Amino acid sequence: MIKLYHFELSGNCHKVRLMLSLLGVEHEQILLDFATKEHKSSKYMKLNPFGQLPILVDGDIVVRDSHAILIYLAQRYGNENWLPTDAQSTSKVMQWLFTAANYIRQGPEFARLYHLFQIPLDVELATEKAAEVLKVFDEHLSDRQWLELNRPTIADVACFPYIALAPDGKISLDTYPNVIAWVERIKQLPGYIGMPGL
Amino acid sequence: MIKLYHFELSGNCHKVRLMLSLLGVEHEQILLDFATKEHKSSKYMKLNPFGQLPILVDGDIVVRDSHAILIYLAQRYGNENWLPTDAQSTSKVMQWLFTAANYIRQGPEFARLYHLFQIPLDVELATEKAAEVLKVFDEHLSDRQWLELNRPTIADVACFPYIALAPDGKISLDTYPNVIAWVERIKQLPGYIGMPGL
Repeated sequence: MIKLYHFELSGNCHKVRLMLSLLGVEHEQILLDFATKEHKSSKYMKLNPFGQLPILVDGDIVVRDSHAILIYLAQRYGNENWLPTDAQSTSKVMQWLFTAANYIRQGPEFARLYHLFQIPLDVELATEKAAEVLKVFDEHLSDRQWLELNRPTIADVACFPYIALAPDGKISLDTYPNVIAWVERIKQLPGYIGMPGL
Repeated sequence: MIKLYHFELSGNCHKVRLMLSLLGVEHEQILLDFATKEHKSSKYMKLNPFGQLPILVDGDIVVRDSHAILIYLAQRYGNENWLPTDAQSTSKVMQWLFTAANYIRQGPEFARLYHLFQIPLDVELATEKAAEVLKVFDEHLSDRQWLELNRPTIADVACFPYIALAPDGKISLDTYPNVIAWVERIKQLPGYIGMPGL
């Protein structure tokens, strides 16, 4: 059976939990202890030398990085619904995975790390970047329901947690009505699951 | 004809130039002026609302983000050589694209931004992260020639520029012999092109 090694409060881990649930893929979740740095022990460093979670193990396949895992799950278990196969559509979806890994990470994700976990970070810069990202999202979502392809894809799943969790980082979504509507739309998907803060 | 909007000194733009050259794909390069913020003008903000380069335009297809562009070019013009299609091999390659977007960006890429362009950043943290990344790369490359699949893929292209440019950020590669050998291997690929600093 697929094993997912994860933290409860990580939005990156939640992306993967959410994807597994949306796909209805049976799996086992193994919760690691962040406080004791269990994920930095040799057992897990062998699975991911960068010492981070989530890690997915599917038979003899090991995948590290939440976004690489989303791609893997969509390709392996998603029947092209969540990630298309043609170059044009794929590129549309992929752009948002890197938006999540880059702008969303340095914006709302970092602001949340600062406020919720007291990680020393330039919170002013993170808050500024969060506003930039949310503005782009709100405009992009002004004339569509989903980020790309008129249907939910891994683009939505990748971007969802840290945008929906923005209030944890003292960033209000109130002035981004299209973002709020999109968050609510995702919450209505069959198989949707939440996490603390959502 | 394919159009690439880029900066001369950006490693992210160089990834795309290198990929186009390795694939032998005919294209037109349009150099924008970073100093006058040409990329933030409405013409380019329409192509990429995040206001960054590179941007690739191929007919009516617009792709933003260097890594999404690598995926697009490999899928569209690469005959599976640079990006396989099965889920397991794809996941192996994709992991490194997110390594580039995440650890390499916050390590050697940020250190270079600080030292070369005087961008205000926590250079101590960037230098520390660069050392972590380079250690993982050197160990990973101790028993292989390429990052995955025993052949050059977009994983190598994605990670190459900012690792090879690490000395621009006052990070020496001298203690990472396997990384140096890998950098040299990439420089020997048919179609390889350099950039200032390489």
